[in-house]
Amino acid sequence: MKELRLNLGRRSYKINIKAGLLGDKTMFSELEDRDVLIVSNETVAKLYLEQLSRAINAKRRFSMELPDGESFKTLDTVTKIYDALLAHQFSRDSVLVALGGGVVGDITGFAAATFQRGIQFFQIPTTLLAQVDSSVGGKTGVNHPLGKNMIGSFYQPQRVIIDITTLNSLPNRQLSAGLAEVIKYGLICDAPFFKWLEENIESLLKRDPISLEYAIHRSCEIKADIVRRDEHETDVRALLNFGHTFGHAIETATNYEICLHGEAVAIGMCLAVELSKRHGLIDSATQKRIKRLIQHANLPTKLPAGVSAQTIIDLMKVDKKIVAGASRLILLRNIGEAFITKDFKQEILVAMLQEYPRCSS
Amino acid sequence: MKELRLNLGRRSYKINIKAGLLGDKTMFSELEDRDVLIVSNETVAKLYLEQLSRAINAKRRFSMELPDGESFKTLDTVTKIYDALLAHQFSRDSVLVALGGGVVGDITGFAAATFQRGIQFFQIPTTLLAQVDSSVGGKTGVNHPLGKNMIGSFYQPQRVIIDITTLNSLPNRQLSAGLAEVIKYGLICDAPFFKWLEENIESLLKRDPISLEYAIHRSCEIKADIVRRDEHETDVRALLNFGHTFGHAIETATNYEICLHGEAVAIGMCLAVELSKRHGLIDSATQKRIKRLIQHANLPTKLPAGVSAQTIIDLMKVDKKIVAGASRLILLRNIGEAFITKDFKQEILVAMLQEYPRCSS
Repeated sequence: MKELRLNLGRRSYKINIKAGLLGDKTMFSELEDRDVLIVSNETVAKLYLEQLSRAINAKRRFSMELPDGESFKTLDTVTKIYDALLAHQFSRDSVLVALGGGVVGDITGFAAATFQRGIQFFQIPTTLLAQVDSSVGGKTGVNHPLGKNMIGSFYQPQRVIIDITTLNSLPNRQLSAGLAEVIKYGLICDAPFFKWLEENIESLLKRDPISLEYAIHRSCEIKADIVRRDEHETDVRALLNFGHTFGHAIETATNYEICLHGEAVAIGMCLAVELSKRHGLIDSATQKRIKRLIQHANLPTKLPAGVSAQTIIDLMKVDKKIVAGASRLILLRNIGEAFITKDFKQEILVAMLQEYPRCSS
Repeated sequence: MKELRLNLGRRSYKINIKAGLLGDKTMFSELEDRDVLIVSNETVAKLYLEQLSRAINAKRRFSMELPDGESFKTLDTVTKIYDALLAHQFSRDSVLVALGGGVVGDITGFAAATFQRGIQFFQIPTTLLAQVDSSVGGKTGVNHPLGKNMIGSFYQPQRVIIDITTLNSLPNRQLSAGLAEVIKYGLICDAPFFKWLEENIESLLKRDPISLEYAIHRSCEIKADIVRRDEHETDVRALLNFGHTFGHAIETATNYEICLHGEAVAIGMCLAVELSKRHGLIDSATQKRIKRLIQHANLPTKLPAGVSAQTIIDLMKVDKKIVAGASRLILLRNIGEAFITKDFKQEILVAMLQEYPRCSS
């Protein structure tokens, strides 16, 4: 088993990574004298809730299933969790367990952050994207009709338990979407890991457990290190948004109907790489190498049809990473060397977005 | 001007106390290049919004008025604040300003805690209760149909600005309700302050500004010291709940229609004192002294008519201070010496609640 620790003083926690952890009672021994509510969704619950429930020996244990999908990532859904907690008279000492992908984790984390001013919660992510990204680092929240993740808080879990066998039930497209974030870690700060990914992308796509365990471990390690240095994203944590400002704009422009989050991030990374090249930061050979890995991971690199440069620019302005009205972007100096900058040319950005290839509609 | 500092590392902040601060531009100089939304209620806005608005020189400044009253302390009202922030495209760098009593402060603080994972907010409390208690220490939140303050988070303001002249518009009954919390500080940890209150209660009721400034300053000082030692109420901060477990049960039992919060706390403190006496911790002379000060502050000491011992006991069980099902209470050893204990006799509690005097209905 791989075990990591995210060091945040009193709020430090362990991240365990291994096949079969979902059924491992030792993972849940601290819940013995606690009231526990497992929150899952209708898809994941069918597959894993029974196994997990058997492993959790609690004072009282309940579970609830949310409807599946990003459209349910709302305050109304969080309220359903509050209702269940209060109906069972759960105290500040009770624990929430999030079993599912990023949506379940974000909603449940926000409920934990705000129920009685904060109760403990466990993250049990079941998608690759959640395992390497959203379950680690304490970003919780829900969407508002006027913007994604606009309501939320920084609130760390008590523990993250990553069972690699859950990836066996993940559709290929979702596996690839998760790989976008894995590739991101190599790109922003770890050239050797990027190289390892180039050499092992096939075995990752074939879900080889040893390769998956290594890739997830290294991704979580990088994320944990960055979050430890800047929990509330005032600084270096923004590096984790590489490709995301473009990605969010693409998701919003297409009404979340065309791309998965990881796919939008893949396109966004390609845009950031192109912009880096046009600023003379990286060369064509490096760009080709990056594009090749993204394509090998079965991820898109072209913009969706019909998304105009102006639309992307307008949407980038309302991205919540914009501080005091000034746009910041994450660009690359080399593979493994991302940096945050306000120092890019607006006309180069506009030309790049106008000229960048689109999918044929 | 009196100035205090609540020391919480990076989250430290100043508390300024003085007559006339609402119109003092130097209090708001750091808002010059920020987007600001002032949140108030319809009652307070009429009195003070114009004066405050003139003092705040911001990049963009908006204001909104919530309906007045505890019944609007809900997630729906918080959502109205999110809507306004997003309609104006406010970023993570914007600032909320809460102008009003505890309800406005709690709602606005929770909106600040959860908008884009946390933005800054100023507390400008306009009731004595909010000035000495709810505006300091970072408890934010709203009510759920099944319980008061059940949804919320610990989130510290950026600054607390207490303008004593706002107390001139406060009804007498509300002033007394605020004094209940002031008396609490003397009782739990400061016998000389309790003695000062005995000697100055008349001038406080007459709203003598020098006396009010001293009482508010000393109350905030005590609260700031306790919060600094235990921000998240795992330990000593629970002392601040002296009288509150009983008080909340009284408020709930009477559907929030009979007592103001401070009045319920006054009765709750009398119950805690009686229980302390029945456990042989304090003598009758001390109890009389405490009751006399509470009465001099024009606060009630008897239970409302028709509230049974069993009702109070049942409601105490769902109080969120109950940890892992075990009741803890705050009792007194002497004036200025409160302590947290599980070591009280259930049969003495029940007998005390049965025999305690009620108001005639």
